[in-house]
Amino acid sequence: MAQTPAPVERPLNLVLLTRVERYTDERARLQGSRAAHLIDVMGCEVGRILRVGVVDGPMGEGRVVLVDRHQRIVEIEYQLNQPTPERPRFDLLLAMPRPKVLARILEHVTTLGVGQIVLTRSWRVDKSYFQTALLDPEGHTPHLWAGLEQACDTRLPTVHVFPRFKPLVEDDLDEILGPGTRLVAHPSATTRAASAFTGTGRAAIAIGPERGWTDYEVDALGACGFTPVSLGPRILRVETACTVALAQLAFATA
Amino acid sequence: MAQTPAPVERPLNLVLLTRVERYTDERARLQGSRAAHLIDVMGCEVGRILRVGVVDGPMGEGRVVLVDRHQRIVEIEYQLNQPTPERPRFDLLLAMPRPKVLARILEHVTTLGVGQIVLTRSWRVDKSYFQTALLDPEGHTPHLWAGLEQACDTRLPTVHVFPRFKPLVEDDLDEILGPGTRLVAHPSATTRAASAFTGTGRAAIAIGPERGWTDYEVDALGACGFTPVSLGPRILRVETACTVALAQLAFATA
Repeated sequence: MAQTPAPVERPLNLVLLTRVERYTDERARLQGSRAAHLIDVMGCEVGRILRVGVVDGPMGEGRVVLVDRHQRIVEIEYQLNQPTPERPRFDLLLAMPRPKVLARILEHVTTLGVGQIVLTRSWRVDKSYFQTALLDPEGHTPHLWAGLEQACDTRLPTVHVFPRFKPLVEDDLDEILGPGTRLVAHPSATTRAASAFTGTGRAAIAIGPERGWTDYEVDALGACGFTPVSLGPRILRVETACTVALAQLAFATA
Repeated sequence: MAQTPAPVERPLNLVLLTRVERYTDERARLQGSRAAHLIDVMGCEVGRILRVGVVDGPMGEGRVVLVDRHQRIVEIEYQLNQPTPERPRFDLLLAMPRPKVLARILEHVTTLGVGQIVLTRSWRVDKSYFQTALLDPEGHTPHLWAGLEQACDTRLPTVHVFPRFKPLVEDDLDEILGPGTRLVAHPSATTRAASAFTGTGRAAIAIGPERGWTDYEVDALGACGFTPVSLGPRILRVETACTVALAQLAFATA
């Protein structure tokens, strides 16, 4: 049985608009839980100026022109006068964590900026984790949206799910990632993540499960071009490691 | 009314022993929930080798010599042959976040390594957050322990709670932090955190609430020696920002 994902908290920085909501090129109508969020949490009233964006598209400014508290409807007049942001240059290969932790990781890494998230099994991953509804687009998209709305970005990360490690690494991963630096976080590595990345082009980093990748898995990733790197001398939880990895890669490009 | 803190998950990397548990210099007896964790979660049996440590003291190796499943008792014979780790060189000044988020932040930052955590009110912090039981040592210590046991460290961060910002910054903060670099994360700053820190000595970083420090607060921190720095171009949640800040400072010292 798929589990019900936890409710998602939406931040204030950007309102992402879907195609359905944009009923003309200048006006959008938000209903249901999205309108309720704007009314109840953000306290939106007519005249409120909001930053808006279209998923994988341009951004701009909107103005609330209608608030119907009873029917839970908010209408926004908007202009999309800012270009579509570039796709983030980092990809994440992640051994499937506990679903509750995955939900938070999806928000953290989307906020920090990630192009693709590849979720896979690993020897030390509990098979049951793959039963979570978070692996369905309806399950994980709200968490990705929350990250985008937090960071003011519109580029939705692509999520790939591979319940089997071997075929992923041997057949699919190279094509998914394309050209770029490939790193695998490994406690015994001596090179720091940011030192192994020149700061140009794309970079992918692989983060193992709580007890780490097995030697076989590190070797298989090595054969696929992944260099072992350290995220520092301390043993990190997966959730912390994902944020640290992206923060250190971003630092290398700063 | 103080809220009950969420249960804490304990990792496997280190078993911290309290004075009470160490009933001789070579033998410790763990009871109740701590023994239950070793038995049920870690699956400890007689003969299992564990890394052990004493809070704010040395570390070493232990061997499980008794497991009583019914009475929930685990006994460990241990030797403390590794020196007390150095106190982490970074301090965190944090505008009080939502208690649920604070619990996670305490674990993240203790895992990454933090010497002192100063929690304070800020204009944009909900007063009710200060009613959480997490502000009592009994409330937050389990989360700090979880971070230490994850990172294999024994140096318990000091937690200071200041429900009023002004007296903290004007009277106490300078003495609490002592000499070192002082930075405040601020979205409009152009200098990156890691560039503003030479990598030597101690460093403190101030992280505001979800909607940021007020101008008055940034100015007051400035008068106390804090330089505004950026954690990158994207707007981060407080939980992500704490991890990114420590990861980037650690990078500067690498």
